[in-house]
Order: sequence, then structure tokens, then C-alpha cells
Amino acid sequence: MKIAVVGLGLIGGSIAKDLKAQINIDVTGVDNSAAHCEAALDLGLVHRISSIGEVALDLDVIILATPVDVIESLLPQILSVVREDAVVIDVGSTKSDICNAIADHPNRSQYVAAHPLAGTEFSGPEAAFKGLFNNAKNIICDKEKSSDFALEMALQIFESIGMTTNFMSAEEHDRHLAYVSHLSHVTSFSLGLTVLDIEKDEKQIFNLASTGFKSTSRLAKSNPNTWAAIFGKNRKYVGEALEGYIKTLTKFKTAIESDDQEGMVKLMSDANDIKRVLNQ
Amino acid sequence: MKIAVVGLGLIGGSIAKDLKAQINIDVTGVDNSAAHCEAALDLGLVHRISSIGEVALDLDVIILATPVDVIESLLPQILSVVREDAVVIDVGSTKSDICNAIADHPNRSQYVAAHPLAGTEFSGPEAAFKGLFNNAKNIICDKEKSSDFALEMALQIFESIGMTTNFMSAEEHDRHLAYVSHLSHVTSFSLGLTVLDIEKDEKQIFNLASTGFKSTSRLAKSNPNTWAAIFGKNRKYVGEALEGYIKTLTKFKTAIESDDQEGMVKLMSDANDIKRVLNQ
Repeated sequence: MKIAVVGLGLIGGSIAKDLKAQINIDVTGVDNSAAHCEAALDLGLVHRISSIGEVALDLDVIILATPVDVIESLLPQILSVVREDAVVIDVGSTKSDICNAIADHPNRSQYVAAHPLAGTEFSGPEAAFKGLFNNAKNIICDKEKSSDFALEMALQIFESIGMTTNFMSAEEHDRHLAYVSHLSHVTSFSLGLTVLDIEKDEKQIFNLASTGFKSTSRLAKSNPNTWAAIFGKNRKYVGEALEGYIKTLTKFKTAIESDDQEGMVKLMSDANDIKRVLNQ
Repeated sequence: MKIAVVGLGLIGGSIAKDLKAQINIDVTGVDNSAAHCEAALDLGLVHRISSIGEVALDLDVIILATPVDVIESLLPQILSVVREDAVVIDVGSTKSDICNAIADHPNRSQYVAAHPLAGTEFSGPEAAFKGLFNNAKNIICDKEKSSDFALEMALQIFESIGMTTNFMSAEEHDRHLAYVSHLSHVTSFSLGLTVLDIEKDEKQIFNLASTGFKSTSRLAKSNPNTWAAIFGKNRKYVGEALEGYIKTLTKFKTAIESDDQEGMVKLMSDANDIKRVLNQ
């Protein structure tokens, strides 16, 4: 089977690497950065490099792993030229705008909207590694709009790299992800910015970076272009999530500034409930 | 040498365990919770349990590891009754109020204000473990107010559990810690609260909890009483840090809601500088 991975960063590169390790899978990589293409070959992420035009016409499966705004513009063009037995899967972190962009496309059923929930704060082909998706959850959205053949192919691919799949609508996906992933990234970037802004004496940050700061600011190392596209595409729900978050922070700030011990303990005891929910 | 550890939670328990493993150190534990005392004995954190009154009169070194408000009220009383060759060390996460409480105490020089920078989101004697402090940084504040003997004793103790010590004023300590530790805790508690509040369908939180949310919300599991005392004692600087953080978040929110890609990329590229500062 011939599979193309378009976008050879952390996610695309790791999918390519996992697929390339399987018998009888031929992996072609596509990336508009020559440096990424070279690195992907050097790192053994793909068998060969090609162009988007060629893989769209020829391959069995095309996986789109570029930033979400690029997926949205590429997807309709690719669906218009693929073979009628080809399957197109995207793995972007937002789903509504992408699904809307091809909602009325005549080849809509050849497409599967997916989001494998895995990643690190690092980016580019060098950050890709085998096993990134192992034991992680995948989400497939609006599955009733994909053909049985396309859906089955997508499920097999994600299962082969160690993932189990949940189903939901694109809208539900974007709302949930705003809270459990996108909000975390905004808070982490903002924490990094705030501390950098105040702590001009940078040596102190390093010395004082006990594990608390390291874990909460880890995501501030993430790729700005990837995340600007995600935040933009999911701005409605990320905006709502930030609204709620700022309200909670303000409540906390009021309790702290007035040394309201009871109020603080109540807020934190409620937050502790996250232990039960995360089941650990 | 006879050392007492007062407060047998994560920090006190771990110090006790590290000290008890050393030759010729006899460790007495004190805690106002009978359950903590029993657990500390069962877990082998201490050689024996005693009362604050007895250890204050008798021991060579007394380490205070209770919540910071309790340290502040205990410390003057203990300094008033200790032997004149005894050393009293506190390991609380805030320093200014504690140092102010004994600034004019006749036995001030027998006291060393310390803050070993280590911890986890878990609490109680069960959370204590050997090696928590290994390779971590310790801070000693206002060292010129401690006698050479007391300071040397404290340095030896922290070195023996694997720590290197930096020096600064209590005021500097509280300001820095507000940004690099206390702010992280408020953001994490608030993130947990926001997500719990919105995501009523709790199963989704678990399913969608990719590593991003797990690391940013980890500290939301921390002990409410410990942290309410810290936030209260450091409310001036934590309030300032939160003020700056909410401003940054609001800037981010405006950029996201107007899909200002350039603005978002600029904010995140600036935040990426945290990589360089954290030197990793």
C-alpha cells in the first residue's frame, strides 16, 4: 500500500515513521520546506519525497499533517483529483472549519476527519519519533460522512500505530479540545511570557525553576505557527474557555489579595477534584 | 546529633527520611495529626515521635516543616525556649513574614530561614520519599542574621541531602517565588476549576486529556491548606504576578478572538524564549 504523509513535522513525521516500519507500506513524504524533506529522508521517516501534485493523483492513502489552515485549503483541491478508491485523512487539531470546507464536495465520502491526541512541545522532523501514538486516543469526527471503506482504512491505520478511536461531531471535538488542550497551551505561553517579562534577572528563573514552573510552562516551547493556526480556527471556543479561565483566576486573585483563607481552600479543594476525574 | 522535624508531610517527611539514613543522626518527628505520626513511624521516616514542647527544650537541631502560617506562630515560641547551642531551621515556601516575626527576637541568630526547592503535587507522610532533594536548589535568606554556627549547620544539613544553596534576602525570595512557583500553582488550580466547571461530561476529560492538559493541571492536585497559607503570606507579590498574568492572557485572548495571526505568532515566539532561559 502506498501512503503519502503531507507535512513532515512532529505529528506527520511520527506517523510516517510508524507506518514505514510496517511490512508492505511504502511511505512518500511531502513538505514545502526543503530542509524538512532532507531531514525526513536522513532520519528515515519516509521512503521518498515527492510533490503534492504527484501524490494526490497516484496514492492509496494521503494523510494531511500540515498546520490546520493549510489542511483547510489543500483538502478540497486534493479531493478533486484523487483516484476514486483513494482515502484522504487529516490529523489536524481543529475539525469544524476543515469539515465545513469540504461539506458539499462530491468526493466528501473519501475523506476521514481525524485527530490523534498525542504530541510534545517540540516540532519539526527532528522531533518525530516512533511510538508517539502508542496507547493514545484518536478521535474521528462526523464518521457518518465518510464511506465505510474510507473509515475502515483510517481505523486500521490508527490501530496499527497503537491508537484506539472515539467518535464525535466536529463541533463537539472543537469545543472539548478548546478546554482540555488549547486552553492549556494559551495558559502555558502566557505563563512563560509573564515570568520572562518580570524576571529580567534570567539566572534566577533557572535557579528557581522548581518542578512546578517547568511543568506548567513546558508547552510555552511549542511551535508558534502551528498554534496560531489552531487558535484562529477554534477562536470561538478558545475565546469562551479563556473567558471562563480569566473569571476563575480573578476570583482566586480576590481571595488571595484579601487573604481569604476559607475562600482559597474552597477553590483549591474543588480543583482537587481533577484527581478523581483524571483517574490517577 | 539529635534532630527534630516538626511537620511530617511531603517536605518534612522527606527531610526526615534522608536524615534518618545517615550515620549518627537521631530523628524525632512531631506532628499535631496522630495519623501522620503513626504513618511516619510505620513508613520509617523517623526514629520516634515526640511533642513540640519536649523537642524545643532538648534537641540540637529543630527543623520546622509545617504550613507557613504555623511556622510563623511556632518559631518565636521555640526560639524562646531552645538550648543556647541549638539551631532552628524552617523550610517554608514564603520567608518575609516568618523572618519579620522573629526580627527582634533575642535568639534570632540561632535561626536559619531556608527554602529547599523541591516537591511534588502529593502531600502527607505517604508522599515523602528518599532523594526528593537530591540535585535540587536550596535558598537561605538573610544569612547575615544567622550566627556562623547556625548557618554552617544548616548548610551541612542541606548538602547532606544533596542540595546546593543560594543566598538572597527574604523579600527577594518572596518576589521571585511568586513568579516561578506560586503563580504556576494558581494557574494550575484555576485551569482545573475551569475545565471541571465546563466539562460536565467528565468521561470526555479523561478521554481528551492529552499530555498538554495533564502537565498544566498537575499542580491542581496540590494540598489546599498548604497553598492557602503560602498564597496568603505572599499575597502582595502573588497578586502582582497574577495582575501581570491576567493582562498577558487578555492580550492573547484579543489576538485569538480577532484571528490576529501575526499578533499570536509574536506572543508565542516571545514565549518560546523560555527554552533558552530554562537552558533545555
